[in-house]
Amino acid sequence: MIRVGLLGCGTVGGGVIQLLRANASYLEARVGAPIDIVRVLVRDPDKERVAELDRARLTTDPEAVLGDASLDVIVEVMGGVDPARGYLTRAIDAGKQIVTANKMLLAIHGGELLERAKKRGVDLAFEGAVGGGIPVIRVLRDALASDTIASLSGIVNGTSNYILTRMRQDGLSFEAALKEAQAKGYAEADPGLDVDGGDAAHKLVVLAMLAFGARLDGAQIPTEGIRGVEPVDHAFAERFGYVVKHLAVAKDKGGGAGAGALELRVHPALVAKDAPLANINGVLNAIAVEGRALGPCLLSGRGAGDMPTAVSVVADVVDVAIAKKSGVSGQSTRAIRLASRAVAPLADVESRYYFRFSVYDRPGVLARITGALGERGVSIEQLVQQGRGSEDVPVDVVMLTHETKESAVQAALNAIGASDYVAKPPRMIRVLS
Amino acid sequence: MIRVGLLGCGTVGGGVIQLLRANASYLEARVGAPIDIVRVLVRDPDKERVAELDRARLTTDPEAVLGDASLDVIVEVMGGVDPARGYLTRAIDAGKQIVTANKMLLAIHGGELLERAKKRGVDLAFEGAVGGGIPVIRVLRDALASDTIASLSGIVNGTSNYILTRMRQDGLSFEAALKEAQAKGYAEADPGLDVDGGDAAHKLVVLAMLAFGARLDGAQIPTEGIRGVEPVDHAFAERFGYVVKHLAVAKDKGGGAGAGALELRVHPALVAKDAPLANINGVLNAIAVEGRALGPCLLSGRGAGDMPTAVSVVADVVDVAIAKKSGVSGQSTRAIRLASRAVAPLADVESRYYFRFSVYDRPGVLARITGALGERGVSIEQLVQQGRGSEDVPVDVVMLTHETKESAVQAALNAIGASDYVAKPPRMIRVLS
Repeated sequence: MIRVGLLGCGTVGGGVIQLLRANASYLEARVGAPIDIVRVLVRDPDKERVAELDRARLTTDPEAVLGDASLDVIVEVMGGVDPARGYLTRAIDAGKQIVTANKMLLAIHGGELLERAKKRGVDLAFEGAVGGGIPVIRVLRDALASDTIASLSGIVNGTSNYILTRMRQDGLSFEAALKEAQAKGYAEADPGLDVDGGDAAHKLVVLAMLAFGARLDGAQIPTEGIRGVEPVDHAFAERFGYVVKHLAVAKDKGGGAGAGALELRVHPALVAKDAPLANINGVLNAIAVEGRALGPCLLSGRGAGDMPTAVSVVADVVDVAIAKKSGVSGQSTRAIRLASRAVAPLADVESRYYFRFSVYDRPGVLARITGALGERGVSIEQLVQQGRGSEDVPVDVVMLTHETKESAVQAALNAIGASDYVAKPPRMIRVLS
Repeated sequence: MIRVGLLGCGTVGGGVIQLLRANASYLEARVGAPIDIVRVLVRDPDKERVAELDRARLTTDPEAVLGDASLDVIVEVMGGVDPARGYLTRAIDAGKQIVTANKMLLAIHGGELLERAKKRGVDLAFEGAVGGGIPVIRVLRDALASDTIASLSGIVNGTSNYILTRMRQDGLSFEAALKEAQAKGYAEADPGLDVDGGDAAHKLVVLAMLAFGARLDGAQIPTEGIRGVEPVDHAFAERFGYVVKHLAVAKDKGGGAGAGALELRVHPALVAKDAPLANINGVLNAIAVEGRALGPCLLSGRGAGDMPTAVSVVADVVDVAIAKKSGVSGQSTRAIRLASRAVAPLADVESRYYFRFSVYDRPGVLARITGALGERGVSIEQLVQQGRGSEDVPVDVVMLTHETKESAVQAALNAIGASDYVAKPPRMIRVLS
């Protein structure tokens, strides 16, 4: 018997209980022993739970789970940094096999927890932390064990992708699309972590940990959310042959573990219409990985929701249970070798850019904008002025640039934004190369 | 030291040698021992090989590899059923860990070899057999261990996908596109296995083995290639909002291992333009999996070529080497439980259909066609007649049907094809639901 303690029993925890029950005989044959959830830590014992849960196993006392020497596996699906961090630290020290879906905790203390698990000789599995049911963690860890990763880019926040999809396909405003997402249960009452990019940044750190062996605990990731994207930006992007997506991007130009700074960033981006990520719509997630030998590889699927994440969590439980039974606990964590890596300043990153200027249509304005850009080495590839404004009514002027350094772009946009011929601050969106 | 014997040294074998050399220190750290290719079996010792190969290790004598008791792992990348089957049988019996990329061998004898490996307690890994560098085997085996698969559909033959893509995007004929594919090295001089669907059928059997635990050694899979698809079919598909792709499709309606017949088939299909598989172009491969709890999940990447397949083969070598070192050889094969499953007759399969009739434009012809269909319960959803023919010059009449049983469709098409108002046999393409 594999005895499991479950920390947290929200939607994902409920899905784990249901899935373990529904596939019990299949999983037992696979592991070589039945998997039993013996203890479930919750805050509110009276809350309604999935029918498959034996309520006698509920407890509000962490000690009843963490102090239970008979447990083999601790599954953490409570989320948040504290008290999850302390609970997992204690469980690792007690030699338990660990499964967590907590991306925030892993982004801030993942390196610390992994090193601790490694020393203690236990597994720490976290497929559920990124991309819901998409097995990207496993693919980075095992399948690409024989290759090195040059870059990855992903749509890793379903809420933001849903909002951008509705804006683009149906012309909704950001606010209307967000309200709809909340009504459908895709967005929290406080949507900040989703739409401002924080959640995507957490997931990016977890992905980079595996893709590049980068220990990035608590690293500051340049992060921009989707609030600034307007319907008109979708329309212009379309005209240029792109769609606007919210991406998490990681690149290792150094070429090898420990070498040089990593490029890590989260922001909206123009994605060419025929690129695989352009067709990932609604709440779907996708991660595009570029292996040096493998070339491009895309994984996509449901990025959130109780069952997809539960599928990943239970797959991890199966893995760590088999490892425990086979006497090879800790092997998967030993395979992850981490080295601290710096994050490249955004100012140093090179990209192509989309600019939208809201300008008063006065003589010489275009010359002044292109002049301000040219002076700083920002070279224009395409330019569109939509309709005509006047000296008092601003008009949109939109440009795509050639490859340019971010610092030059920022300097130029600051100068232009401070001038009296623009009606509001310029809008900038990076273009995915 | 992990001592490897390599059977075959063509493009994939060369890629394996290069990858093991390029990532030697990384792989050594991961496995806990260096991996060394000690013996390489080839037919022609004088042929040019990758520079990384120590030619002193080449042999033309199978005995020098199979009889070498010091080897830990046998990697088979020679392809074909014989003598590969005998070599692997012998290597399994000698307790070697096995890695193969041989889809034809697995499709015909995979169940037999897996059962043999299971009994002998060795691993038999075959990520390289399907989808080149796409880790679909591993995902079906491990990541979805906690879920059951309802269906999968895949673009698994890069040559056919390249030809269909060129026909659709650039209006080439089948013959011209095939010639180009051969010139670029994407298609063999004898392209039959690719364009007639045999290769895709082999891969489908391997996928179904893992997705449904189905032992299908040598099963007859209803298989249709792409030779019958004409440029005009791409144009009509486009008009209806579809693209024509060559697919391998598997469905388990029985719901569970061992229950009922599996639907397995390989044929061209109309795929809705906004479906993920519609955007997989050129030599790319993709597999769309529908998990009962997970929902849809797509994996795509380079399906063929030396390096992508070598990435998969070397990832397998790493896995079986770690298992060997850890004393848990055979665990991965034990996890695959196979039961014989019947393949549902194509006549019983239900689908929507695309028909193209080349008819003489005589009074009452359309009524006779729709009548012949209606009599057999085939109901039409859309109908297009392109231009006007005459009593002597045929014109294309194209239809999409509602969901219908294949047997009814075949009966109707036979009747219509035998009539004197059609200029040639009707063209039928199934529609992916």
